[in-house]
Amino acid sequence: MTAYEKLRARMHEVALLGGSSSVLSWDQETHMPPKGTPVRAQQLGYLAGLAHRLATASEVGDWIQSCEEEDGSNPERTPNIREWRRDYDRSTRVPAALVEELTCAESFAREAWVQAKGVTQFSTFEPHLDKLVRLCRRKADHLGFADSPYDALMDLYEPGLTVRTAAPLLADLQESLVALLPELQAKTSRLPGDALQGVYPIPAQQAFNHEVAAAMGFDFAAGRIDTTAHPFCSGIGPGDCRLTTRYDERDFTSSLFGVMHEAGHGLYEQGLPAEAYGTPLGEAVSLGIHESQSRLWENHVGRSREFWRHWYSRAGDAFPHLRKIAPDDFWLLINRIEPSFIRVEADELTYHLHIILRFEIEKALIEGTLEARDVPTAWNERFKALFGMTVPDDAKGCLQDVHWSSGLFGYFPTYTLGSLNAAQIFAAAQRQIPTLAGDLAEGRCASLLQWLRKHVHVHGRRYLPAELIRLATVEPPKAKYLIDHLKTKFGSAAE
Amino acid sequence: MTAYEKLRARMHEVALLGGSSSVLSWDQETHMPPKGTPVRAQQLGYLAGLAHRLATASEVGDWIQSCEEEDGSNPERTPNIREWRRDYDRSTRVPAALVEELTCAESFAREAWVQAKGVTQFSTFEPHLDKLVRLCRRKADHLGFADSPYDALMDLYEPGLTVRTAAPLLADLQESLVALLPELQAKTSRLPGDALQGVYPIPAQQAFNHEVAAAMGFDFAAGRIDTTAHPFCSGIGPGDCRLTTRYDERDFTSSLFGVMHEAGHGLYEQGLPAEAYGTPLGEAVSLGIHESQSRLWENHVGRSREFWRHWYSRAGDAFPHLRKIAPDDFWLLINRIEPSFIRVEADELTYHLHIILRFEIEKALIEGTLEARDVPTAWNERFKALFGMTVPDDAKGCLQDVHWSSGLFGYFPTYTLGSLNAAQIFAAAQRQIPTLAGDLAEGRCASLLQWLRKHVHVHGRRYLPAELIRLATVEPPKAKYLIDHLKTKFGSAAE
Repeated sequence: MTAYEKLRARMHEVALLGGSSSVLSWDQETHMPPKGTPVRAQQLGYLAGLAHRLATASEVGDWIQSCEEEDGSNPERTPNIREWRRDYDRSTRVPAALVEELTCAESFAREAWVQAKGVTQFSTFEPHLDKLVRLCRRKADHLGFADSPYDALMDLYEPGLTVRTAAPLLADLQESLVALLPELQAKTSRLPGDALQGVYPIPAQQAFNHEVAAAMGFDFAAGRIDTTAHPFCSGIGPGDCRLTTRYDERDFTSSLFGVMHEAGHGLYEQGLPAEAYGTPLGEAVSLGIHESQSRLWENHVGRSREFWRHWYSRAGDAFPHLRKIAPDDFWLLINRIEPSFIRVEADELTYHLHIILRFEIEKALIEGTLEARDVPTAWNERFKALFGMTVPDDAKGCLQDVHWSSGLFGYFPTYTLGSLNAAQIFAAAQRQIPTLAGDLAEGRCASLLQWLRKHVHVHGRRYLPAELIRLATVEPPKAKYLIDHLKTKFGSAAE
Repeated sequence: MTAYEKLRARMHEVALLGGSSSVLSWDQETHMPPKGTPVRAQQLGYLAGLAHRLATASEVGDWIQSCEEEDGSNPERTPNIREWRRDYDRSTRVPAALVEELTCAESFAREAWVQAKGVTQFSTFEPHLDKLVRLCRRKADHLGFADSPYDALMDLYEPGLTVRTAAPLLADLQESLVALLPELQAKTSRLPGDALQGVYPIPAQQAFNHEVAAAMGFDFAAGRIDTTAHPFCSGIGPGDCRLTTRYDERDFTSSLFGVMHEAGHGLYEQGLPAEAYGTPLGEAVSLGIHESQSRLWENHVGRSREFWRHWYSRAGDAFPHLRKIAPDDFWLLINRIEPSFIRVEADELTYHLHIILRFEIEKALIEGTLEARDVPTAWNERFKALFGMTVPDDAKGCLQDVHWSSGLFGYFPTYTLGSLNAAQIFAAAQRQIPTLAGDLAEGRCASLLQWLRKHVHVHGRRYLPAELIRLATVEPPKAKYLIDHLKTKFGSAAE
C-alpha cells in the first residue's frame, strides 16, 4: 500500500470509531436508562482514546510527510493531505499532559459552573475560569499563532479565522445592528409577545415538523427526528443523520424552528459526498459553515413571508388555534425583535450583540488584558452599552452559557459567522435562482437545496471556509448581507 | 502490572467494545434509518474485528499461561483464568482462513435460505447446507473433541455439554412427552384456539407489560422495552439491559409472554455482579442457563394459576375484552397443547419434540451419517413418527429455521436444556421457599428473584453449567422435573 492508501485506511477506522461514538452519544441523550451512565462514559472514553491514538500515531505523521514529499497535485489527494496535516498538527502539538490537565480542569469547572449559576454567585466559578484561561493560553502557545493567542483557539472551530479578519467584520456588524435596533424593535413589537400561545398537541407538532423537514429535502430513509433536552444534529455516517428537538405544548414554533435549524445541519451532512467518507473531502468544513446551513433554513426560509404563503394554511389545519391569528400578525410574531438578557432566547438581530459581547470578553481573557475576576463588571458594563439594559444578576449575565466552563474559547464567533455566511449565501442563491421566491411560496425547496448541494455541501473540506464563501458567493465574507436582509425584511428606512 | 492485571485490563477493553457493539446492534433493530445499513455493517465489523484481535493477541496467551503457572487458587482469579483460557483456545484454535471461509459461506447460505424458504425449494439451499456442514466439521476438528465432532460445536454454546450426556437426557424426555401428549392435548383443547382474540390496543399492552416486568423485579432505571420484529434481550453492561417485544393487536398474550421471557433474560443480566464487569465472573455462563431464566419466568410463573390469581383482574381492567372469559378458560387457553409444524409457535410440551428432531438431524449431519440432500426425507419421516403429522412442504419443515444457514449447529439443544433447567431450578425454589405459591398469587416475585440471584445470577461463569445446576438444585440435570411440571400442572393420571 502507498502512504496515501495507508492514511485512507487508517482514517476510515477513525471515522468508524467516530460514528460509533456518535450512536452511543445519541443513544445517551435519547434512550439510555439512567443507570447506564457509568458504563457509557467508559465506552465513550475508550472509543475516543482509541480514535485519538490511531489518528496521532507517529506512523501517521510519517505517511503524511511521504505524501507531502511526492510530486504533483491531484483534486482528491491534495486537499485531503492538506487537511490531514492540519488535523495531525492540531492533535499532536498540544502535549498529552496539558490535554489531561485541561480535561480534568474542565470537569471540575463544569461542576462549579452549574453550582455558581444555580446560586448566581460568580465567585464559585471564578478560580475555575481563571485556571481554564491560563491552560487555554498555554494550549494556544503550543498550537501556534501569528498575532493573537485567541487566533489559535478560533482556528480550532473555524480554520483560518483570525482576530485580524473577525474584529472588523464584527465591528461593522455591531454598528449597523445598534443603529437598526430601535426601528426594527418598534416595527415588530406592536403585538403582545405571548399572542401565539395556545394549545399545540405534541403529536400534531411532530407530524407538522416531519412534513416541513421532508419538504426541505431531509431524507427520512437516511435520518430521523427524536426528542432531547437540548436539540442537536448528529451525523453518524453516510445514510444516517439524526436530528433532535424539544416541544413546548403552548407554542409550536419553538420545536418547528428547532427542527428547521437542525434539518439545515442535517441537509449539509446528507449532502456530503458519501464516496469520500473517512476523508476530509467527506467532512463538514467548519462550525461557521455548518451554522450557515442551519440558520439559512431557519431564518431565511423559515421566517420568510414566502415560506408561510404555502405553509400557513397547512399549519392552521394542524393547529386550529392558529386560525385566530392573521398571517401578517403571525409573521410579525415569529420575527419579533426585542433585546433580552439570554443569548439562546434572542432574536435574529440582537443575537449578534450577545456574541460580540462574548467575543470581546473571551478575546481579552485569552490575550491577558482582562482578569477572570473582572468578567462580571466588564460583562455588565458592555451589556448596558450594547443593549441599554442593566443585567440583574450573573445567572442572566456572564454565567448563562456552558461554553467557558467546557474550555470553549473562540467558539462563540462561529455562531455569528454562521449568520453572516447564511445571509451572504442566501443572497447569492436569490441572484442565481430567479424562481426562488416563487418556489418557496409554493412549498418547493428543491431549487434551493440543489444550489446549496452544488455550491457548499459537495465540497466537504476542499476549501477553507472563507474561500468556500468566496467561491459560492463571488465575494469574501461581509457583514453587509445580514444587514441588508434585516433591512429588506422589515422595510427599513435606514441608510 | 502483573499478568493477571494485564489480562483484566485487556478484557475490560474487549467488554467495552462488546457493549458498544450491542448498542449499535440494538439501534439497528429499533431506530436506525434504512440507509444507515452499509455504514452500520462497517462499524460493527470493525468493532468485532478489533475486539477479536485484542482478545486473541499472542500476549494474551502468554499472560494466561503466566497466570496458570502461578501457585495457589483464589476465588476470583481461578475461575476467571480458567474461563479466559477456554475463550482464548476456542478463538485461536480455528485458523483465520477457516473462520473467513465460514463467514463468507454463511453469508451466501443465508441469502439462499431466504430464497429457498420463499419458494419452498430445498434444492436451492442444499449445496449451501452441505458446504456449511463440511466447514463446521473442520471447525470441530480444530476445536477438538473426545467422542463426537458435534460435541465440539455444542460446547461453543453450552460449555461441557456432550452427546454422551445430552442424548440420554433427550431420549428420556422424548419418551415421556410422547406418552403425555394425547392426554394433555385432550385436556387443554376443549375451547376454540382463537377464543382469546379481541381488541387489545398496543398502548394498553405496553402499560400492562411494563407493570408486569416491574413486578418481576426488572429495574427500569437500568433497562427499557422497545419494539422489534424479533424479540431479544441485549445486555449492554451493568446498568443498561434492553428488552424488545412485538405486538399482536388481537392477542395481548403474545407480547406479554415475549416480555416475561425477555425480562427473565434481563433479570439474569441485571443480577450479574457489576464489580466483575469485564471478567468471566461478570458474564452469563451459557445459553442453556440464560434460557432457563427466560423460560422459568415465562412458563413456570407466567403460565401458572398462581400468577393469574393476582394479575387477572388487572388484565381485565387493561383489556375489557378479557372480562368475557372466565379465569379458568383463560388459563387453559394460554396453556393449550397441540402439535403444529412450526417450532417458534409450539407449546410448552411439543416444543421439545421439535428440538429433539433437530438435534438428531444436525448431529447426524456433523457426524457424517446423514447427507444434506437427505435432510427433507429424514425430517419428514421423523416428524411423522414424533408428531403423527405429515409435513406439507419444506417451508413448514426443514427450511423453517434460520440457524443452519447461519452455521449454527449444536445451538438447538440449548433451548430444551433451558426448559429442563428451568423446571429443575423452579422445583428447587419451590422446595426452599415455602411461601412461593402464595407470594406469586399475591403478585409478589421478590422471594423468587432473590433466590435466583443467590443461586444462579451472582455466580456468573464461576461454575460450568451442569455444576451450577447441581449446586442450585442438589442434583445433576434431569428430564424428570419438566415432566413432573407438566403432569402436575394438568393433573395428569399418567405414571
